[in-house]
Formats: sequence, C-alpha cells, structure tokens
Amino acid sequence: MATDEFELIRHYFSELGCDRSGSVRLGVGDDCAIIAPPHDRELVVSIDTLVEGTHFLPGTSGDKVASRLLGAALSDLAAMGAVPAFFTLALTLPEVDEAWLAAFSGKLAELAKQHAVQLVGGDTTRGSLTLSVQVHGWTAVGKAIQRSGANVGDRIFVTGTLGDSKAGLETLLQKTVGEHVPYLQQRFFSPEPRLTTGQIIADYATAAIDISDGLLADLNHLLQRSQVGAMINPAELPISQTLYRWVGEKRSREWALTGGEDFELCFTVPALLEPKLAWALRHHDVAVTCIGQITDSPGIVLAEDGRIWPVEAGGFNHFTDVK
Amino acid sequence: MATDEFELIRHYFSELGCDRSGSVRLGVGDDCAIIAPPHDRELVVSIDTLVEGTHFLPGTSGDKVASRLLGAALSDLAAMGAVPAFFTLALTLPEVDEAWLAAFSGKLAELAKQHAVQLVGGDTTRGSLTLSVQVHGWTAVGKAIQRSGANVGDRIFVTGTLGDSKAGLETLLQKTVGEHVPYLQQRFFSPEPRLTTGQIIADYATAAIDISDGLLADLNHLLQRSQVGAMINPAELPISQTLYRWVGEKRSREWALTGGEDFELCFTVPALLEPKLAWALRHHDVAVTCIGQITDSPGIVLAEDGRIWPVEAGGFNHFTDVK
Repeated sequence: MATDEFELIRHYFSELGCDRSGSVRLGVGDDCAIIAPPHDRELVVSIDTLVEGTHFLPGTSGDKVASRLLGAALSDLAAMGAVPAFFTLALTLPEVDEAWLAAFSGKLAELAKQHAVQLVGGDTTRGSLTLSVQVHGWTAVGKAIQRSGANVGDRIFVTGTLGDSKAGLETLLQKTVGEHVPYLQQRFFSPEPRLTTGQIIADYATAAIDISDGLLADLNHLLQRSQVGAMINPAELPISQTLYRWVGEKRSREWALTGGEDFELCFTVPALLEPKLAWALRHHDVAVTCIGQITDSPGIVLAEDGRIWPVEAGGFNHFTDVK
Repeated sequence: MATDEFELIRHYFSELGCDRSGSVRLGVGDDCAIIAPPHDRELVVSIDTLVEGTHFLPGTSGDKVASRLLGAALSDLAAMGAVPAFFTLALTLPEVDEAWLAAFSGKLAELAKQHAVQLVGGDTTRGSLTLSVQVHGWTAVGKAIQRSGANVGDRIFVTGTLGDSKAGLETLLQKTVGEHVPYLQQRFFSPEPRLTTGQIIADYATAAIDISDGLLADLNHLLQRSQVGAMINPAELPISQTLYRWVGEKRSREWALTGGEDFELCFTVPALLEPKLAWALRHHDVAVTCIGQITDSPGIVLAEDGRIWPVEAGGFNHFTDVK
C-alpha cells in the first residue's frame, strides 16, 4: 500500500484529462503549474468543496464522488459561458483506500477527458474525507456572463429539469426502492455541467447563475446583484416525468423551487433576443425553458392563474448535514 | 450568529487583500472570479491544504492558522520566482466560531495586503476543520523557475535557517517552556514566504523548490526532476542560534536536514553566476547560504572533513498525525 503522499499522487493523479486550449505549459509535479494565457482571453476561476457527511453519505463510492465533485465545479464555469481548461484537486483522506482511489481517479479521468479539462496540480493530506476542486476556464475578453446584468423585462430561463437532485438525495436518505431511483440518484451523483449551453447563451444572456442552492435561493443572488426582482410561473417549471410520477405536482414543484444541487443554469435574456436565442439553440439537446421575467420590485413573486404570492428565498444550506 | 454560509463568507471574506498587477476584473461574489492576464505574463498556480490534527494541533488560534496557511501557499509562488496576484479559499468548519473566524480573517487580510495578493473567491462548508488555499502569481514568459533545470556543477543554496519549524512543532508537542519557544513557534506558525528572494534569483537559478517536507526530501525531488545528484556539506547548513542553543549541533543538523515546513527556498545556480547572484543579493535582508553542489551521481551524499556518506531521503510525511 502506497502511504507516501508523493507516490499516491503520482500513481493516481498524473496526466489526467486534457486541455484543448493548449495553455498548460507545465502540469503536475513542480511547486506550481505554469499556464500560458491564450491571446485575447480572460481567465475565470472557481473553487468547490465536498465533505463526506455534509454533501454525500459516508460510504459513497469513489466514482460517484468524482462525478459529483467535477460536475458541480464545472457548472460554475458553465454559468460564466466559459470553456474549461484546467483544474487542481485538494484531497483530504482518512486513509489510503486503493479501491476507492482507483474508482475516484478513474471516473475523474473519464470526465476530465470528456470535458477537455486537465489536472495540473493538487495536494493530498490526511484527515476526514474532504475534496476541493478549483476549475479554470477561458472566455473572450469581456464576455463572461455575470450575475449582475439582468434588466427589467428580461425573460428568465432554466436548463434541463429541476428538483431531481433533491429527490435523488431523498431516495438515498429514505432508502427508497422503485424504478424512479436510478434516474434520480444519477441526477444527484452525476450532475451534467451545462457547458455547451453556457457557451451558446453567452452571446444573448444578460446574467446567469448555476442552481446549487435551489432555484429561489440562486435566482435571489442574481436578483440582488442585478438590483431587480422576478415573477415566476410555477406551472412553467420544468419537472421530469420521473419526479412528477414519484411525488406528484405539489411536492415536485416545491423541490423544483427549493431543492439544491440541480446544477442547471438559470439565466436572463432580453425579450427582443428570445427568437435569436431559440434559433441558436435549435439543434441543442438540452431543454431551455422560460419560467418568468425580471421585474422592478425587489424579491420573487410566484404568479399562476391570476393569483400572485411573494416567496421567501429558501434553499439548501451547506451547514445542514446528511449524516 | 451567522449560520448561513453566504452571510458568513460575505462578512469575513469580502474585499480582502489587493492585487498590484491589476489583473482582477471581478472578485468574490459571482459563480467565478474573472481575471484579465497581463500582457507577456504566464500564470503559476498552486493549491495547499491544512488539516487540524495533521498540520496543526486542535485548538490553534485563527491567526496562527491563517499565517501558516497563506505563508506555506505563497512559498510555492516564491519557489517559481513569481509575483503573487490572487487566491481562493476553501474553508471547512465544524461550526461557526465567530471569534476564531475574526482572528483568522483578520490575519489573512493583514498578510494578503502585505504580500499584495487578493482573495477572489471561496467555498465555505461544514465538516472537520480543513483549509485549502489556491494561490496564483505571474512570471515573465518562460521565466518561472522549475525543479528540472539543475546541472552538474551548479551550486546549491538555501535561504534563511533550517530546522526551526520542526523545533517549533516539538516545543508544542513537548509543551516546552523557555526563551527559545517564542522564536521557534513563530517559525512554525508564521513561515515567511521568500517571495522577493525568489524574484531576485529567477534571473540566475537553474532550478528551485521550497522546503516543505525537509531539505533532503525536497532536494531529492529537485534532483529527480533534473536527473542529477548532490553533495551537501552538513557544516554549511544554516542553523539559527536559538535552535543550536536549545538542542546542540547533532540534533539541529538532523532537523535542518529532515525537519519539514521550513518554507525556505532551495535553489541551484551555475558556479559562474555566483558572483552576479551575490551582487544582486547585496542589499537583500534574507540570508542565502551555499550548502553544496550538483553532481552526476544519483541521490545525495553528505561530505564533511574528508568523510563522505550517502543518505536516504527522508522528510515530513503528511500522513503522520500531530494529534
């Protein structure tokens, strides 16, 4: 068993993934990685941490932790409209479990290759299972989508379906069995970063955020940064058939509004650009749904069938355990 | 007490430090930070993790953890000869201890300002106390000092004094009292990243590494990457008077060779450039000591008074607890 950290890092985490931008001059193995920024590009960076017992149940296999970790981190790049380039990994482990590490690094390598992002450095330490990934991507100068650009009248869109990840967590906590379980747990463990969608919408979106804490909570962050409000029609929320069949309309809408960790994108587009957006997305295989619009009243109101009611922003709080 | 992670981050970690390069276009508060790379610069990045019970004793105050964390991380930039620019922080906390956080963020802000490095993002999660910092710096194109460039005949230098940090840890573990304690514990908790030294030597050094795992272990990494060997004279090892007085010659040399976490630089310079190096460092206030030279025989030999003996590479292993 390799107990020396250098051997451990070298064995499982050397030469993993790839960087299509060609910006990585030196990867794993020195005091720092060296990156040559491409001409006319800006760098976007984000760091994300997963903790056993907080973000995933003890005993979760290495491949599931890897897909959850990298998917969630890359989702932040998607929300900026960026092209992924490279990442680092800080891995804190209670012990050297070679089977777990093999599953973890195998899945990490598979996804890093799929998303064309290269591991360039890391740190391996001993302690409770905690994983931090910092992802880096490139955007054209001035083209990163921020949270702060939404304007009154903009349409509000979300990608994919909402609430599935929360439902997946519930099936784990409740030890549910049934045909809904594989899909929902896959949505929880293997979030699909909407990278291509983010890159397409970057030409039209005024603001964007990824949904990690729940739609209401994250939309609220966007609204606060943009100093605007929003009106959402709950009947327009995109909900998967699997989720709807399992818990019905009321609960599925609730989870779509407040369930965390969907890692879908929420973004705003001027009404006039909606046809161009639709055209740009015509061959795209990720659903994009308009769920409401930006208003000039602070906060979020829900509007359906002529009824209107304000909501308190709520969402997944990372200080809630799943132990 | 602020238990919401967003409030917590905002309260303690917004607008911290500064970036003299002016490259930070957007800092804390969006999905990603946005960086505009300066013209003709390359980016160097490194991530470092500290775990309570592994790298510092439970109950260590926030300011000490902050100086240890940022000092160690910036030391990796120093080893590349880079100018620090920005950093991110992944903070995993068992609970929201406001006094600890205030001390931590206060010291972090002080040091970030001192070293001109700006906090641009982070993630706060619940779990055992674990801290990861990723630091980013700029170098001129092709000028980052790597581990791989040492050549036979190059002189081997180290900065400052060695073994003090290991001694500081020993005073903590043994609960020693005495006049040596403050200096040695300060060396353990407040490593001084040799940033200016790194920037000066970048014009002369063929290879460099920072000493985090012990001189022999880290020099060995440099030798392996450069495919050379080294001869070291133990009598030339720079040892502080405080350490020498406390443990005597034999133990202080042992700790200088194998004690971890000194965060001094070890670097190699062609013999012909030694006078130029000395001239460049003439007004510099950090001691730089020649301790040996690069050879063509793999591994490290110690040579003193006509005697020569090979050494096994040994060093601080991060899988060793200090609980």
